[in-house]
Amino acid sequence: MNNKPVDLILTGRYLLSMDKEETLIEQGGLAINDGTIIARGRAEEICSAYSAKQTIAEEHGLIMPGLVNTHTHAAMSCFRGLADDLPLMQWLQDYIFPVEATLSGEMVYSSTLLSLCEMIKSGTTTFCDMYLFAADVCRAVEQSGMRAWVGEVLYDFPSPNYGELANGFAYTEDLLAQYRNHELIQITLDPHAVYTCAPELLVRLGNMARDNDRLYHIHLAENSDEVNTCKERYGCSPVQHLEQLGLLGEHVVAAHCVMVTDDEIGLMAERGVKVAHCPESNMKLASGVAPVPKFIDQGVIVGIGTDGAASNNDVDMFGEMNTAAKLHKVTCMDPTAMDAVSTLHAGTMGGARVLGAEKMIGSLEVGKKADCIVIDLDQPHLTPLYNPVSHLVYAARGGDVLHSVINGQVVMEDRQLLTLDETAILRKIQEMAAVIGKQKNAG
Amino acid sequence: MNNKPVDLILTGRYLLSMDKEETLIEQGGLAINDGTIIARGRAEEICSAYSAKQTIAEEHGLIMPGLVNTHTHAAMSCFRGLADDLPLMQWLQDYIFPVEATLSGEMVYSSTLLSLCEMIKSGTTTFCDMYLFAADVCRAVEQSGMRAWVGEVLYDFPSPNYGELANGFAYTEDLLAQYRNHELIQITLDPHAVYTCAPELLVRLGNMARDNDRLYHIHLAENSDEVNTCKERYGCSPVQHLEQLGLLGEHVVAAHCVMVTDDEIGLMAERGVKVAHCPESNMKLASGVAPVPKFIDQGVIVGIGTDGAASNNDVDMFGEMNTAAKLHKVTCMDPTAMDAVSTLHAGTMGGARVLGAEKMIGSLEVGKKADCIVIDLDQPHLTPLYNPVSHLVYAARGGDVLHSVINGQVVMEDRQLLTLDETAILRKIQEMAAVIGKQKNAG
Repeated sequence: MNNKPVDLILTGRYLLSMDKEETLIEQGGLAINDGTIIARGRAEEICSAYSAKQTIAEEHGLIMPGLVNTHTHAAMSCFRGLADDLPLMQWLQDYIFPVEATLSGEMVYSSTLLSLCEMIKSGTTTFCDMYLFAADVCRAVEQSGMRAWVGEVLYDFPSPNYGELANGFAYTEDLLAQYRNHELIQITLDPHAVYTCAPELLVRLGNMARDNDRLYHIHLAENSDEVNTCKERYGCSPVQHLEQLGLLGEHVVAAHCVMVTDDEIGLMAERGVKVAHCPESNMKLASGVAPVPKFIDQGVIVGIGTDGAASNNDVDMFGEMNTAAKLHKVTCMDPTAMDAVSTLHAGTMGGARVLGAEKMIGSLEVGKKADCIVIDLDQPHLTPLYNPVSHLVYAARGGDVLHSVINGQVVMEDRQLLTLDETAILRKIQEMAAVIGKQKNAG
Repeated sequence: MNNKPVDLILTGRYLLSMDKEETLIEQGGLAINDGTIIARGRAEEICSAYSAKQTIAEEHGLIMPGLVNTHTHAAMSCFRGLADDLPLMQWLQDYIFPVEATLSGEMVYSSTLLSLCEMIKSGTTTFCDMYLFAADVCRAVEQSGMRAWVGEVLYDFPSPNYGELANGFAYTEDLLAQYRNHELIQITLDPHAVYTCAPELLVRLGNMARDNDRLYHIHLAENSDEVNTCKERYGCSPVQHLEQLGLLGEHVVAAHCVMVTDDEIGLMAERGVKVAHCPESNMKLASGVAPVPKFIDQGVIVGIGTDGAASNNDVDMFGEMNTAAKLHKVTCMDPTAMDAVSTLHAGTMGGARVLGAEKMIGSLEVGKKADCIVIDLDQPHLTPLYNPVSHLVYAARGGDVLHSVINGQVVMEDRQLLTLDETAILRKIQEMAAVIGKQKNAG
């Protein structure tokens, strides 16, 4: 036997790489060792060149990069469906803020685990999270084996986690120190938004991001209320406000960016600002439609995000891509807008670029981390198959994902989660929800 | 034993009736006999009052009415993903029309079977179909046990099915005769659209619909091209054109209705015209957004449809409801628009009313036909559960449907289709698609 030993071989009917050449290999496969893709090619070549501890061969499977969810609040899954169909401020003030005020680290831990179950089961292998009790978010992420960018959200008012703002900086410093060299988790600096953070807070977190070479993750220009408030307070729009504070740069992950002018799009492109596009949340909260085709046209890097499950109400990136592709067509009244290739790119390589991780993840290439999923093509809604990319955007659903590998670790096989105890997690959330439901009814 | 014998008992954690009172029964159940719901109540009461040949007890299940897809072209599933992201006329003329010209009854039969698999597996129990080779559509429907309204589409030019138009009337008369007293299939009269059917054709089918007390199913005001063509040709809009021909009435199922004025909405309400709203197809083809909140506000009955899989690219009514609810919020810039209750109503009772079948289906009530589905609530994306209606619209997917009962017959159990051979159907379509794909590449 001359074949080289590796940890894992994956083979399937198709391997869709999402590399620059849009390589699609029929009867394709990957050899994975020590978390990294070490070979990619035809299944028979891979199988004859390597000998694996574990092989997942899926006759009707399509192997593709795991999806990258660039903006979420994973722990908000415990508020899924608590309140819908309400004006934003009523939703926040009457429902979300009161229940968030009673949050604990344990609740955030459990709710993050719930979203991790849902994310893995729907094909996401990397996510970028902004929420409270970030240390508990990280604790859940570590258990799952997921790859994540995680930040503690800071704002001017006291937090249910750290109390006064001063403590928030210390909390964040601790996180930065704790996860400085972590293989799967990177800490981000997360000012909530320009209307909830004074300029001093925005700048201080900006400095921390630069000093630590970390991402700066902020809600930006989400809706017209935000723009109006910013204009009243600072005499300029949210994008202009960040520019005047010297905060726009390549390390900025700006979620939403619905209400931006053409000039601001040009400025964002010039500064290298990244956009986390959350179409379903923007639709459900009636925030508007982000000008994504213009962003892409102007060279702004765009990833896709689900936002939290409280305003979506799921974290299924396949559903989000489907919606994104269709929404921009009807918004532009142009059926060629946001085509399937552009959309799938935004959900994979685009997301990786938003996180500055394009050399590590986002496509299946030798030398990259082994973050990949296998889709079951043998289903009525994915039959016939003329074009795999079309199906992944316009017909596939999260439930079509059979297997998931993150950093070389099989985290789901045949839809069974291997790192998380799904039954126990669902039971725990049901107990929590009974209490949250009572608070809501008492409120 | 005093309990009355019945064919089937269904029990679950919730029974959502969609009746006028929005009855939701915890630990609910149905007793079904001879295709009809004969009792509804708490599971323990149903189980003690009736003794069933078959019982489906789903601890984590939600029992609800089957979904009603009010506009589709089931057989277009064989063109799923053949061509996307193109202007409508290029898509039709370069891809769809050339392959449709080569269609046969056998291809329509097989492709309809494929959509039937997908529809049953995603919770649809009734659909309203307009396509070619309608006798072959009916043949597939009969095999599946699905409830359907089926029509042969007529237009001024020769058809791949019946050839010259004169033959189309004879073909339709035969269908009407053959299915006059069928339990599950009703024939409809289907002019394609005002821009493809001369006034004489529109009127003749209108007379046939009235004479036979059947529905008149037409694409209406789908996009601005249709409106402009109609105005050039007849000096009025499509809705006005039908009005002037005396064709608007309660038996009209008008698909799309994207480009209608406020006055036309009022007229449609007055005439009792029903709307089949197809948001995803309208988005994907960049046709526009139908003014559904206005329709509902003005008293126009609205159902939801997927359109064909070639322009969607699935026939999943759960996805369609999710999109509908979000699309109207962002279009109206009002987060209270198209709330979850209104949306789920459109997918069930609204659809039943569109088909004039509101006394027969659309809700789970004693005396109605037993068309119902059971959703698996025990999943991460449906946890926690504060409000079942919210989950069904904003979080559930077709893949969450465990069981389906149509007219009292269990057509799917534990996601296994009982009336259709899914494996054989998928294999047949793959063979067909190999030929269609070659035609496309040769074209």
